[in-house]
Amino acid sequence: MTTPSATQDSYPYQNEPVWSKSEKAIARKAFDAALKRELHEVIQEAKQMASQIKQPSDLWGLEHYLTQRRKEIDHKYDYRYSQLTHVFGKLLQEGRLGEEDLSGLGEDKLKSIRSFAKFLAEMEAA
Amino acid sequence: MTTPSATQDSYPYQNEPVWSKSEKAIARKAFDAALKRELHEVIQEAKQMASQIKQPSDLWGLEHYLTQRRKEIDHKYDYRYSQLTHVFGKLLQEGRLGEEDLSGLGEDKLKSIRSFAKFLAEMEAA
Repeated sequence: MTTPSATQDSYPYQNEPVWSKSEKAIARKAFDAALKRELHEVIQEAKQMASQIKQPSDLWGLEHYLTQRRKEIDHKYDYRYSQLTHVFGKLLQEGRLGEEDLSGLGEDKLKSIRSFAKFLAEMEAA
Repeated sequence: MTTPSATQDSYPYQNEPVWSKSEKAIARKAFDAALKRELHEVIQEAKQMASQIKQPSDLWGLEHYLTQRRKEIDHKYDYRYSQLTHVFGKLLQEGRLGEEDLSGLGEDKLKSIRSFAKFLAEMEAA
């Protein structure tokens, strides 16, 4: 891609909303907080699992758990502006973010985020 | 391989010693004991590492440690009679088995085991 990002911001692709400076700050804060909380959960779970290891199968169960969680987290936390409404939609649906964390984002983005969260919830219920 | 193992035992490949019933019992016991001790060490180390996790890099460090140890152990503990003198040689060199654990094996096998242990020790010193 040879287009400089400044130009991209001025002429965004269709359906890719422009993120203002203040929205970027809100997004970064919400994203980092959710990631930090999720990593903290994994750390607590790993400590708990390790403390209960009694046999080799428990040990390799811990390895498997860590590998799966690392892959899931790597995949989920994708901080590209083109992906952020999906990322936040998923975090909203999982209860890892609340609407209050996203307060200050433009209504266009909130609408996309809520819509994707609803879609995921319906997928899960199906 | 279509040759039944009974025939293989009667006509072993050159340099592949035949293991008598009593030698097989000694080998199995020594192998299982070394594996059990090594797995116990990994379990203790994993518990220790987990208890000291403070940040995500420690968490993924634990995952990496477990993956490496699992691969090493899978590779090292190869209970094929064609491989056993190498396996025991390595365990002897690592101090995971003593000569006393192998007592009762034929002199031909002990010689191969000691010779491989010596080779590994020299490799390490080089």
